[in-house]
Amino acid sequence: MKKVYFDNAATSNPKPDSVLDAMQHYLKHICTSPGRGGYGQGLEAGRIVYETRKKIKDLFNAPSEENVIFTQNITYALNFVMMGLLKPKDHVITTSMEHNSVIRPLRFLERTRQIEVTVVPCDAQGKLAPEDIRNAIRDNTKLIVMTHASNVTGQIMPVEAVAKIKEQAGVFFMLDTAQSAGVLDIDFKRLKLDFLAFTGHKSLYGPPGTGGLVISNAAAKAVDPVIHGGTGSLSDSEMQPGFLPDKFEAGTPNTVGIAGLSAALDFINEKGIDSIREHERQLTLAFIRGLKQIPRIKVYGSEDPEERVGTVSISVEGVDLGKMAYELDADYGIMIRSGLHCSPLAHKTIGTFPEGTLRFSFGVFNTMEDITYGLEVLNEMAAKIK
Amino acid sequence: MKKVYFDNAATSNPKPDSVLDAMQHYLKHICTSPGRGGYGQGLEAGRIVYETRKKIKDLFNAPSEENVIFTQNITYALNFVMMGLLKPKDHVITTSMEHNSVIRPLRFLERTRQIEVTVVPCDAQGKLAPEDIRNAIRDNTKLIVMTHASNVTGQIMPVEAVAKIKEQAGVFFMLDTAQSAGVLDIDFKRLKLDFLAFTGHKSLYGPPGTGGLVISNAAAKAVDPVIHGGTGSLSDSEMQPGFLPDKFEAGTPNTVGIAGLSAALDFINEKGIDSIREHERQLTLAFIRGLKQIPRIKVYGSEDPEERVGTVSISVEGVDLGKMAYELDADYGIMIRSGLHCSPLAHKTIGTFPEGTLRFSFGVFNTMEDITYGLEVLNEMAAKIK
Repeated sequence: MKKVYFDNAATSNPKPDSVLDAMQHYLKHICTSPGRGGYGQGLEAGRIVYETRKKIKDLFNAPSEENVIFTQNITYALNFVMMGLLKPKDHVITTSMEHNSVIRPLRFLERTRQIEVTVVPCDAQGKLAPEDIRNAIRDNTKLIVMTHASNVTGQIMPVEAVAKIKEQAGVFFMLDTAQSAGVLDIDFKRLKLDFLAFTGHKSLYGPPGTGGLVISNAAAKAVDPVIHGGTGSLSDSEMQPGFLPDKFEAGTPNTVGIAGLSAALDFINEKGIDSIREHERQLTLAFIRGLKQIPRIKVYGSEDPEERVGTVSISVEGVDLGKMAYELDADYGIMIRSGLHCSPLAHKTIGTFPEGTLRFSFGVFNTMEDITYGLEVLNEMAAKIK
Repeated sequence: MKKVYFDNAATSNPKPDSVLDAMQHYLKHICTSPGRGGYGQGLEAGRIVYETRKKIKDLFNAPSEENVIFTQNITYALNFVMMGLLKPKDHVITTSMEHNSVIRPLRFLERTRQIEVTVVPCDAQGKLAPEDIRNAIRDNTKLIVMTHASNVTGQIMPVEAVAKIKEQAGVFFMLDTAQSAGVLDIDFKRLKLDFLAFTGHKSLYGPPGTGGLVISNAAAKAVDPVIHGGTGSLSDSEMQPGFLPDKFEAGTPNTVGIAGLSAALDFINEKGIDSIREHERQLTLAFIRGLKQIPRIKVYGSEDPEERVGTVSISVEGVDLGKMAYELDADYGIMIRSGLHCSPLAHKTIGTFPEGTLRFSFGVFNTMEDITYGLEVLNEMAAKIK
């Protein structure tokens, strides 16, 4: 059976061959603790980690390599900031399109640390009006945290407008780039970001186990580390070092994953973000156009392909979506994700809670033939609905 | 030049071929988000994670698979407990042989959360008198946290005796098995452990980026999660689930690393922990015997090979240790680690602060020929010292 992977918003698949090769090479020929031994093979591990920091720095226009922190996934990066920055009575602004990696830490801090949270509502298409962010700002607002693109509807958020508002208000701004890094141009300095959380294993095409945080020097001073331990630096001290990146990197890093991410960043750079974006835009446009011809199917989110990344949520009238997702895989080899996508608030916003949607999300390895096949299958399945 | 790797206490090298194969297979043929898709390939990723939990459960005699939490490394596991459990005025007991992954979180909590910490001193060989732990217990003692074996001297700590003390006192007990998992028999239930922190990439022979925590059901209730986010479970809720393992596992796990760890656990089981232990014991015994014949070299820690794992710290009179470590690699291909090994307190305890020691640490792939070569080189270098 033909196999088509449309779950790239969860994790991209396949990975470039060069990622697999880099990880094999690392395990076979290096595999030491980076920079902590006095021997050459340990320095080589350190060099790989440093070069990957440099590639992330270049991708996002970060201040320097040291401002790039590696974590297991983007959830850790988001938590590091929220758990390490926010003090009792601090106010945080976020949106109703966020993933639980933003909402759950905030709800926990609301309950245990008297943080105040404003969730700015988006409209039924999942669109944010930037002035609603401005109107939510209070004297005690410490942080605005929001996604760059929705993991449910693919909606691209108006981050440039929010960047202006944040600058005027003098508050911290964290961007969740889980669905945009590697697909949209993201400039840390131009967007006046204090924190940029990224994941390695989605649209950056790296392995699971990679992700991180870009953090400005000023913002880093305001954040306590959440995890403390060995850093290979200032080993005579019983306190976590105050400098970057060591302040936020304790214990042995996932060096083999970072080696894979490094190769993935080369892949992204060779393809070019603009060309990746254009490819996904065309697939998305064709998919949405096709969906509109199919009875019983409702497409969520913006109609404008310029306003969305390659993620499309649909519902199908008269069908159990979980069962339909199962059949798409079992009968047609199409892998998608049904349900709430860890984003209950987003589904409430677009009116699909608690059933959720069927989510199709495209990657650089998907082709127009995949889209055509997906549409044929959906047509066939829709025709069978009694 | 001959290459001999004696830095297994930092990370084991090489990894078994089966670990590399399992990771390649995962990346090539699976590479989905575990259990979160309705499709077969996603269930396959979930199955690998579950089976690895089962192998960890069996290795440590944990209560069940759900009591096994995966983290990026053991530092995260140790921090999850200390940061999530301890409340103001709680008292913690630890020892003077701990790694900074234990000491740094405690010092931070002392400063920011009014935690009280007693560091029980060990003797100049790095040995702990269990009755000193008993004498340190107070009414407000919440936790005893200690290493199973020192990463500086290899000293095996009297954990059975501490387990009895902890049971009588009714306090929580966390064991840091960074230097013992896969080498010493560790029985979660018999040792009455509440928390067992482990790393995947040292003597378990898995890849960097793996590690975790075994946690009892009762202890899990007392610990707040440090990291909150998507779990693929209870996605309609804005709160972290309260059940295991999801309570402590947010965001996409390092599935490719876990696949490698799974193969590594098979390797350990095939070899047998007893046989691994006996191999390392013989290497250590031969090395220490040889060292005693070399002038100017001082060996730290217990003389009794039954009391130590395969880690030996030495100093060399009249020599800069950092320079000697560099020459061991550059001139003889011997990779070791000099300095403080992220354990300043342990070096203060054995009297080697702030210079540190040269640390030789052995693994299952080291041979008696490696030991002989190491001793020859040390003899040659010692003879050259003016």
